Amino acid sequence: MQHYTSLNDIQDLSAIIEKAIQLKKNPFQYNDIGKNKTLIMLFFNASLRTRLSTERAAKNLGMEVSVLNISNAWNMEFEDGTVMNLNTSEHIKEAAEVVSQYGDIIAVRAFPTLTDKAKDTSELIINSFKKYATVPIVNMESATDHPLQALADGITLEEQKSEKKPKVVLSWAPHPKALPHSVANGFVHLMNKMDVNFVITHPSGYELDPNITKNAQVVYNQEEAFKDADFVYTKNWSSFSDYGKVLQSDADWMITQKKLGKAKFMHCLPIRRNVVAEDAVLDGNNSLVIEQANNRTYAAQVVLKELLTQLK
Amino acid sequence: MQHYTSLNDIQDLSAIIEKAIQLKKNPFQYNDIGKNKTLIMLFFNASLRTRLSTERAAKNLGMEVSVLNISNAWNMEFEDGTVMNLNTSEHIKEAAEVVSQYGDIIAVRAFPTLTDKAKDTSELIINSFKKYATVPIVNMESATDHPLQALADGITLEEQKSEKKPKVVLSWAPHPKALPHSVANGFVHLMNKMDVNFVITHPSGYELDPNITKNAQVVYNQEEAFKDADFVYTKNWSSFSDYGKVLQSDADWMITQKKLGKAKFMHCLPIRRNVVAEDAVLDGNNSLVIEQANNRTYAAQVVLKELLTQLK
Amino acid sequence: MQHYTSLNDIQDLSAIIEKAIQLKKNPFQYNDIGKNKTLIMLFFNASLRTRLSTERAAKNLGMEVSVLNISNAWNMEFEDGTVMNLNTSEHIKEAAEVVSQYGDIIAVRAFPTLTDKAKDTSELIINSFKKYATVPIVNMESATDHPLQALADGITLEEQKSEKKPKVVLSWAPHPKALPHSVANGFVHLMNKMDVNFVITHPSGYELDPNITKNAQVVYNQEEAFKDADFVYTKNWSSFSDYGKVLQSDADWMITQKKLGKAKFMHCLPIRRNVVAEDAVLDGNNSLVIEQANNRTYAAQVVLKELLTQLK
Repeated sequence: MQHYTSLNDIQDLSAIIEKAIQLKKNPFQYNDIGKNKTLIMLFFNASLRTRLSTERAAKNLGMEVSVLNISNAWNMEFEDGTVMNLNTSEHIKEAAEVVSQYGDIIAVRAFPTLTDKAKDTSELIINSFKKYATVPIVNMESATDHPLQALADGITLEEQKSEKKPKVVLSWAPHPKALPHSVANGFVHLMNKMDVNFVITHPSGYELDPNITKNAQVVYNQEEAFKDADFVYTKNWSSFSDYGKVLQSDADWMITQKKLGKAKFMHCLPIRRNVVAEDAVLDGNNSLVIEQANNRTYAAQVVLKELLTQLK
Repeated sequence: MQHYTSLNDIQDLSAIIEKAIQLKKNPFQYNDIGKNKTLIMLFFNASLRTRLSTERAAKNLGMEVSVLNISNAWNMEFEDGTVMNLNTSEHIKEAAEVVSQYGDIIAVRAFPTLTDKAKDTSELIINSFKKYATVPIVNMESATDHPLQALADGITLEEQKSEKKPKVVLSWAPHPKALPHSVANGFVHLMNKMDVNFVITHPSGYELDPNITKNAQVVYNQEEAFKDADFVYTKNWSSFSDYGKVLQSDADWMITQKKLGKAKFMHCLPIRRNVVAEDAVLDGNNSLVIEQANNRTYAAQVVLKELLTQLK
Repeated sequence: MQHYTSLNDIQDLSAIIEKAIQLKKNPFQYNDIGKNKTLIMLFFNASLRTRLSTERAAKNLGMEVSVLNISNAWNMEFEDGTVMNLNTSEHIKEAAEVVSQYGDIIAVRAFPTLTDKAKDTSELIINSFKKYATVPIVNMESATDHPLQALADGITLEEQKSEKKPKVVLSWAPHPKALPHSVANGFVHLMNKMDVNFVITHPSGYELDPNITKNAQVVYNQEEAFKDADFVYTKNWSSFSDYGKVLQSDADWMITQKKLGKAKFMHCLPIRRNVVAEDAVLDGNNSLVIEQANNRTYAAQVVLKELLTQLK
């Protein structure tokens, strides 16, 4: 694994999930593998879980950590050949190569514009870091993907499943603001690699990028989709075809305990209560959201450990 | 001590002050008690002393520290049962439980609204953290209290007093902006636990919460209150009865060297020079403000040490 | 070395550069010299390189590091005797002395106003820290100087020069915004201490502070100045005489590969591509900008090591 910018960077997902579960039993068992190594975490956007869990993961491995909000540095330019006489004062070419000299691994969070579909789909920012940095890049959520979340979700599913091949539903849910597709996309990538019966459900118009969903089964009737589900992974996203738009409020798509039945409830957090899911779901015994967040640490830790091993 | 959100969490104040004074002699004597433990510091508001001293205290004990300004994460909801379709995107129920998984102790700073008396008086934010977190909570200044400051002040008084039972005056002083009551309240809590002759002085209308001051002596004439004082603890606060209001400018309440006489001058900092106290007071030999700030480290360190001891 | 606020704080520049080059070979060779010591980094302004390289340097020496953006603390007052009833709530007198108690070395970044020439030239902020702090102060770029950059540039020149006495040109270049003189001034200080043939070139009106340039040679024709140059150090700065003004756009002063010829190209970064220098310069083999940034770590590390040695 040279970088970790997508779940596809993992060759053997089951083996990595198993390693993460072993790490979780004693998070400090490799606490000198990161000695004299530095993780630099660069944030273009807000973060709670990703920031705290990734920092913790790195320190559990004995790494030093520097956290920088890009808003405290310089506006960055990502286009080639630009005459930089406007709002950007530092080109990614210099930034990525320079920062590579201060750290051994660089983790980056950069959300999509949700207005420029071509730029977002091309993953300009995270790919520019990969191109110009000279050290491994970790994706802490990019324009179209969130592979640390996906790996944590894989760990959670592995720990929680009681069927050999569970039925997993990815359900869209309402939200007042336009949100990225990255968590949903990351979860689709995960589903493609796990032995599950996978169904996606959302209102018409909220189809995800067909290059990502490929031949995943889509059921437009939420109730039908939820039938016999073992896990319901819930997430809002804005329209992909009518890019970045909130098409309607669809309050009846909110997840209720009644809809859920015996299925386990998953969500990446933060979650808007009584909009995305009702209190009863989040406060009930079927909710896995706290455990998913817990597994963020071990997902990050297993990824950093793999990258550190290959640095040596 | 399960949490440290008020001076009342300390069972034996004299013993804790004594431990802090011992720690100060060699701050590194317990530098592996915090090994593999993480302090997460969450700031809803500005901080200089609290942030740097608490971070130093934790590291003196061998802890790892993560510092997060909530403005770099998500707007947090504290009310129960809300339909979260407005400005808040993460509920404290999830936030507190999730963050508890990334750290072993959580420290929180959250100032009052000064507009919603009921919310502030109920200590909604810090109490929500106590309720939903699964690890100890440290109060780095909440709506109505500042117990790390109070403990540092207790250490300073213990170190500086020459009388067995000194006379200590808490004096209101003018300030251009509406300020919280937390430092004054915390100091009143401290006075209730120390063997002192305690007097509060302020203009009429600035009475503190009677549930906190209880039967403390209030003298409305500052000159009279200062007579034979050993220590004058100065602080501005806004009105409690006319909640959060600045009633008048009262420039004649500023602390001068002449008023102070031989009394030692105390203030929590930051202080507006020549508004709250004149330069001569702060630059004179009777000022203890720098030593109070120094003791913030040892107050935090003794608290963290107590909490760590009980984690094991 | 009591503080490091100017290159003049270094007694023997060659010896320090040699030590830095030795540190670079094994950055962890003194990794316990900073044990139980804390570097506090205070930022009044944006930073990428300075922040990450100085933090890394301190940690390479085994120090703990606290990073604080002053915007997350209190507005600071630097004038003596002010009645602080306006926008500032903490005086440097308290701030510097208090912070000295939480750290063993304080590093400060504070850019000039570019509107108040007297204040900037007097170095009010960094000099106030020197005056009131009780620990060593490191200048991470002040109103008129950037000595960590200058030292890194000295290391780079020493590593890269092939002539015993190279010709070094400091060239002004265009920029859309008004920039400080600090990097240019710092480089002039460096040139005064190295065995070089030094020439400054800029359009008329952009003369640097004559108290700094002294009798340095100024050539107003860029092409003539560049003749037979071994190194071209490029930087924009605003006018000093017409203080803080951008006089004209002067696009023809941009550095091109053709102008540069065989000379090595230097710049402190961040750099606006195709405004200050064309892509071909930065992407070409003669650019030293990445290596200059790399040497920021070792410049900071050698300075911190010197200061730590004298603390003991």
